[in-house]
Formats: sequence, C-alpha cells, structure tokens
Amino acid sequence: MTDFQTEELLRVSLETGRFQKFLGIELVSVDTGKQELVMCLPYKDEFERLPGSGQIHGGVTSALVDIAGDLALIMLLDRPIPTINLRVDYLSMAVKTDLLACAKVVRAGRSIGVVDINVSDSNDKMIAVGRGCYSTLDR
Amino acid sequence: MTDFQTEELLRVSLETGRFQKFLGIELVSVDTGKQELVMCLPYKDEFERLPGSGQIHGGVTSALVDIAGDLALIMLLDRPIPTINLRVDYLSMAVKTDLLACAKVVRAGRSIGVVDINVSDSNDKMIAVGRGCYSTLDR
Amino acid sequence: MTDFQTEELLRVSLETGRFQKFLGIELVSVDTGKQELVMCLPYKDEFERLPGSGQIHGGVTSALVDIAGDLALIMLLDRPIPTINLRVDYLSMAVKTDLLACAKVVRAGRSIGVVDINVSDSNDKMIAVGRGCYSTLDR
Amino acid sequence: MTDFQTEELLRVSLETGRFQKFLGIELVSVDTGKQELVMCLPYKDEFERLPGSGQIHGGVTSALVDIAGDLALIMLLDRPIPTINLRVDYLSMAVKTDLLACAKVVRAGRSIGVVDINVSDSNDKMIAVGRGCYSTLDR
Repeated sequence: MTDFQTEELLRVSLETGRFQKFLGIELVSVDTGKQELVMCLPYKDEFERLPGSGQIHGGVTSALVDIAGDLALIMLLDRPIPTINLRVDYLSMAVKTDLLACAKVVRAGRSIGVVDINVSDSNDKMIAVGRGCYSTLDR
Repeated sequence: MTDFQTEELLRVSLETGRFQKFLGIELVSVDTGKQELVMCLPYKDEFERLPGSGQIHGGVTSALVDIAGDLALIMLLDRPIPTINLRVDYLSMAVKTDLLACAKVVRAGRSIGVVDINVSDSNDKMIAVGRGCYSTLDR
Repeated sequence: MTDFQTEELLRVSLETGRFQKFLGIELVSVDTGKQELVMCLPYKDEFERLPGSGQIHGGVTSALVDIAGDLALIMLLDRPIPTINLRVDYLSMAVKTDLLACAKVVRAGRSIGVVDINVSDSNDKMIAVGRGCYSTLDR
Repeated sequence: MTDFQTEELLRVSLETGRFQKFLGIELVSVDTGKQELVMCLPYKDEFERLPGSGQIHGGVTSALVDIAGDLALIMLLDRPIPTINLRVDYLSMAVKTDLLACAKVVRAGRSIGVVDINVSDSNDKMIAVGRGCYSTLDR
C-alpha cells in the first residue's frame, strides 16, 4: 500500500466503532518509513474530570495512547492487532487543550509488537508517555 | 467517616465530571477494613469498538481500572489522589456485558499507593487485570 | 507429569545457568492445581546495595520476580517460556532477610501467559509485587 | 557540580555495594544538559542463563535498566533516589556481548521522576527497553 492508502485505512478505523467516534481522534500524519504516526484529539467538555475545570480525564489520555499504539502497528502490518498490555505514565494535567499523540514502533516482531506513545498538549508540553505491547501474530 | 459516609463521598465523585458520567460507573460495595471496593460499569453501545459487535473498547476498560484504583485510595485517605502510572493487561474480549471492577489496595504509604484492580464480565470471566501507582502525598 | 516430577524439572532449571546459581534460589513448593509456586532466596552479602547495610539490591528482587513467574508457567506448560515484559513495584526495603516469592498464574493462554508474583521477607512483610507477561507460544 | 564531579560521584556509586560490583557496570558518559547517561556492562560468563549458551539472563538486563535509570536521576538531583516501579520489555536475546544502557530522563519532578532506558548489544541491536518511575522527594 502507498502511504495514502494506509492513511485511508486508518481513518476508516478511527471512524468505525462508537467509542472511537465519541473520542473524535483525527489522524495527522503517517510515516511508514519511520514507523511513526501522529494523531490529534480535539478538546471536548465531555472529557472533563471535574465540572468546569477543563481538566482532561486520565482515562481519555490512556484510550488515546492505546489507539495510537495500535494504529501504528496496523499501519505496518495491515491487520487487526489486539493489545496485550499497556503502561501509561502521567506527567502533567492537560487543561482545555487538544492532545497530540505521537506513536513510534519500537519493534514489530512475528508475535509481539512494542510501541512508544508520547502525548503532548497544544503548547508542546508532555502530558503522558505510554508503552504498549501488542499481539502481531497472524492467526 | 463511617463506611456509609465514605460511600456517599465516592458516589458523588463518580457523578461529578462529564467523562465519569459518560461511562456511568456505579459503586457496588466498599469495605474500608479489607481496603477493597467493587464497581459496576453497565454495558452501553457507546462502548463498542466495532459497530454491531458488542465488543467493549479497551479504552473503556482501562478508564474503569484507573477510576476503581483511584477511588479505593480516596476511600482510605479522603483526599484527591493523582494517578502516577498504570498498567493494564487485557485477558479476554468483553462482549455486550456489564463489567465488574474489584480494586484492592496493596499499599497506602505516605507518598505512594499501589492498587490491584481485577475486571470481570457478568459471567465472572476475567477481562483484564490492572495495577495502578498513585500519589498519596498530602500537599 | 506428577507434581513430584514437575518439582524435579524446576529444581534442575534453578541449578542450571550461572546467574541462577549466583542467586541461589530454592524451590519451596509447587501446586499445579492452584497454578501457584513458592520460592525462597536465602540472604547473601553479595546482594547488598550499600556495604554493611544488609539492604538487598532491587535488581536481585526483580530477577527473583522474573524467574518465579517464568517457572510458574514452565510448571504448567513444560517448555521454555520467554519473558515478554515485566513490571515490578517496590514496596519496602528488604534488609538482611531471606526473600519468599509466591507466583500465581493469572492466565496461561495459547500465546500469552500472565503471572502475579508477590515477594515478602521472612517476617511476612511485603517487599515487592511483580506482574510478568510471557510468551507461551509452542513454536 | 561540574560534569566531571558528577561522573566521579556516579562512579563511586557503581563501585559501592557488592551487587553492583558483581555486575561490573562501567560509566561511559554523562550529559547533564541532555539529562542522559550511557553505561556499559561488560560480558561475563556469570550472567549466563543456560550453561555454555552465552545468553545473558533477563535478570541481569533488568538490574542494568534499574541502575541506569536511577543514576540518571542521581546525576541531576545529587541525592539517593528510590525506585518506585519499573517496566522492562525484552526485545531480543543478548548473546555473549557487552550491553550498553542509555538512560534519558523524561521528567524530574518534585516528587516523581520518570526515565527511559534503552539497552543494546555491541552491534547496536536493541535488547530491551525499560521505563522506571522513581521517588525524587527530598525528605
């Protein structure tokens, strides 16, 4: 597939599924050579953890981390990739800001994939770092 | 506080914040003696990862894990408890089922709290296990 | 295999390999029904992180966690089981004490195994909790 | 402190403690500006997991990860830094090779530090990636 076709595939995946639609993640760029993609999660009041605070709930951030890592491997392997496990370290509170997630594949092996995902706010401040382990087995 | 007062506090926390309301988590039981609580997340189609599949998105499960662990420490310490980091291991796909999360405090130290969170479906099948590390510092 | 044969197999595995011999881990009990095993790591001054302190280095504890989790799956599946990833949460400093590791299999699937490992000192104080993810694929 | 003084401090820390001496880790470089340090663990047969295989036991790798992350924060903060928790993802088997660990501080906050540690062999092949969370509280 060309990068253009890959982008179309990933966009469809982000628009399929009601939870993904609730979040409203947008694909910013894919780079199959660098094994890296960037996503944006535009801010919505539905993400608030305290009414009126604009603080984005950690559960929103971890869902973004998981989806970005997953799609980075789907970008390379073009098949469904179940998450095995996920670690998220929260670094700062995100307040009323779009979130950018940059996912970089560390390893895409025959059975296991590992992806690093960095989440920053619109001022480039680091919000969270995630590391996901995914099943790349072709069953 | 009595366990009854503690339950009221936790219920308010689950109803405050728009993301928590979107999820719709319900408190099932608290046991301050055993340092354990149980929550229920009733199934909604908004949680689907693929349209019509009934499969609950992993991001929903990890948000439930995070919130259950957090509230288990709030139950003991009665103050806001930021998440430091979180690990979630996914064991089975949850399909069109309510989720039960049982959170048990492993350690509630002066600066760090550790909580184990097990998530099962309505047939008692394990869906995921989580371990969260939280900041218990009284600032 | 009987539990007795399984124990023999695991004992051999603990005595093979120079790093395992340096550590000197001993098998205490196996229970294939409960999918649980217990190991003991007798204290040695070679484990000290500060001279004369008796404090056991965290690297010793994490090696014990990894090996205990690995052997719990070998106990069930009777083949080599590579570690995919490992999380260790340190709870207290272990000082001049034998360490007991109790490993309990959470899941032994066709491709992925998950094991919980609790480490305590000789006074039953929790030192660390670990969670390991292992490859159970039969290649 | 100058980088030279910092290096001396870290070298002493690596030579103190019997477990660190058993491992034999050497400091390669420190860069306080980039918040990064590099260590080398020269190969020894004592690290073998199977006799005659030259395969380095995962427990050796995880100890290296923990120590490299710890020293990266000590380099910045010049005080003892206890490990809170650690995740290690194993990528390839290391066979009869020196190991290089590059530790980069992701965050050095008032109470929590997060460090990424990459381990490679002498051919620059990635062996493992680690992420450690440390207590930076000044008590």
